[in-house]
Amino acid sequence: MTEPTTWQACDPDFESRVRAAFAAQPLMEFIGAALTGVAPGVCTIALPFRPELVQQNGFFHGGIVGTLADNAGGFASYTLMPADAGVLTVEYKLNLMAPAQGDMLVAEGQVVRAGRNLVVSRADVFVRGEKGRIHCATMQQTLMTMHGKGVA
Amino acid sequence: MTEPTTWQACDPDFESRVRAAFAAQPLMEFIGAALTGVAPGVCTIALPFRPELVQQNGFFHGGIVGTLADNAGGFASYTLMPADAGVLTVEYKLNLMAPAQGDMLVAEGQVVRAGRNLVVSRADVFVRGEKGRIHCATMQQTLMTMHGKGVA
Amino acid sequence: MTEPTTWQACDPDFESRVRAAFAAQPLMEFIGAALTGVAPGVCTIALPFRPELVQQNGFFHGGIVGTLADNAGGFASYTLMPADAGVLTVEYKLNLMAPAQGDMLVAEGQVVRAGRNLVVSRADVFVRGEKGRIHCATMQQTLMTMHGKGVA
Amino acid sequence: MTEPTTWQACDPDFESRVRAAFAAQPLMEFIGAALTGVAPGVCTIALPFRPELVQQNGFFHGGIVGTLADNAGGFASYTLMPADAGVLTVEYKLNLMAPAQGDMLVAEGQVVRAGRNLVVSRADVFVRGEKGRIHCATMQQTLMTMHGKGVA
Repeated sequence: MTEPTTWQACDPDFESRVRAAFAAQPLMEFIGAALTGVAPGVCTIALPFRPELVQQNGFFHGGIVGTLADNAGGFASYTLMPADAGVLTVEYKLNLMAPAQGDMLVAEGQVVRAGRNLVVSRADVFVRGEKGRIHCATMQQTLMTMHGKGVA
Repeated sequence: MTEPTTWQACDPDFESRVRAAFAAQPLMEFIGAALTGVAPGVCTIALPFRPELVQQNGFFHGGIVGTLADNAGGFASYTLMPADAGVLTVEYKLNLMAPAQGDMLVAEGQVVRAGRNLVVSRADVFVRGEKGRIHCATMQQTLMTMHGKGVA
Repeated sequence: MTEPTTWQACDPDFESRVRAAFAAQPLMEFIGAALTGVAPGVCTIALPFRPELVQQNGFFHGGIVGTLADNAGGFASYTLMPADAGVLTVEYKLNLMAPAQGDMLVAEGQVVRAGRNLVVSRADVFVRGEKGRIHCATMQQTLMTMHGKGVA
Repeated sequence: MTEPTTWQACDPDFESRVRAAFAAQPLMEFIGAALTGVAPGVCTIALPFRPELVQQNGFFHGGIVGTLADNAGGFASYTLMPADAGVLTVEYKLNLMAPAQGDMLVAEGQVVRAGRNLVVSRADVFVRGEKGRIHCATMQQTLMTMHGKGVA
């Protein structure tokens, strides 16, 4: 329904910039998340199951699902920003649609609209379990381009 | 502006039920969060700073802020549910309003409206730092009462 | 990124049911909105420009954009519900991404995930103006199936 | 829970500026809404019942509830902005908590946090009906200060 879009990155080094920013977040290593895909306007993050990351039923905790979605949408947006910019999440809204029960969580972020200052993105989160790949959460997010405030 | 409300818990043992549910979430221990307050329609969770929980600037990661807010609003709602019910987050929306920079993060959840099946709650997150106590995030959330599906 | 889905309607008369529900909303006639497309999991609503519907700059008011998005997502969800069910919007979140300046507003709703009781949908709103078709807003929404409470 | 705040308006003429902006929105007159209260960080809008504004059950349409909430939160934020600024809704999230059934709808907006560029606000919507005053909806919203772009 939304027209498919092919984004252009204004910074040719967007990928190494995004990978460096991801690596600079201690939380990602702490939970065991890995950046598995970066392209203009797109970012994918994967997280293998760990027993520390669950809620009372043994499923990935909603806060972890939100963390992955926030980062996938945020780094998708960051791919389109200028080389000297930082990125800030203004807000996000997450629907938890099915139990995140499985051995791998994958968040796929994509830009919906990129303005000069504000970017709107979306992320879909899938869990890989016994029933196959389940679309367990979806997020809509607003980010701000912090011109001139990139992580040097 | 919202009229202050005094909630009544239908389950007299709501506090031990909420404390047991909190203790049953391995993620809370993993990040070091503690349940610091439970009352009808209200729940407070505190999280001391740890270097593993940060983003690239050394502030609490937005996903951690969201995790705390989700749980504070969720357990606030859970206080008002029947003894045999479970609680499920349907969705939440989080505004990150200021950098979560400091040595302690506190999320205060409160119920806005409790229906038979759906509960709407809110959580405010504060960070205690050099500038005092900063209101760094606010969340609006929808939860579902899972009748007869409590954690026995 | 989200896998394309082909929804199946369980009620063969879903289209006439949705058209009747749309016609039963006086607000739609009052603002001049028309139901322009109905298919399983999908609904499109169009609204020609009227000078009464604008904000201070002469663009469609954000509340009108939200009204159209809410209804497009709601009726998209309603197509998949049983014949005897009613539909209720639990909540929605709308990003206004560009000025809604033009002579026609179109909201395209689609279901993201349909559970037994809760449905998650999305709507994209486009405005047709001098610069062509602009994607001016996007919405994420939660709806509830009211079993046995359809508009008879 | 949220500490009560007393906002200071930097523009002494904030009230006439807000009243002029409200009057400049043709949609408000079209639906019959009136600005009933303006103070620093606060705005109240009332809307008497009209049969054109309803959904299929004869209650105020959710889109109308959202329109009122959006404007109450937006003008509450506008009270705190500089004299030469315009205001733009970035996004809002609305929970519809009870049927908006009654003869008067009132939206009360208040600022939660006012940054230089972004403002976060909240609005609560009440309906006055046979059962008294019901809190039927609550909204969380992000606005942008458009410096130097006020409606002259």
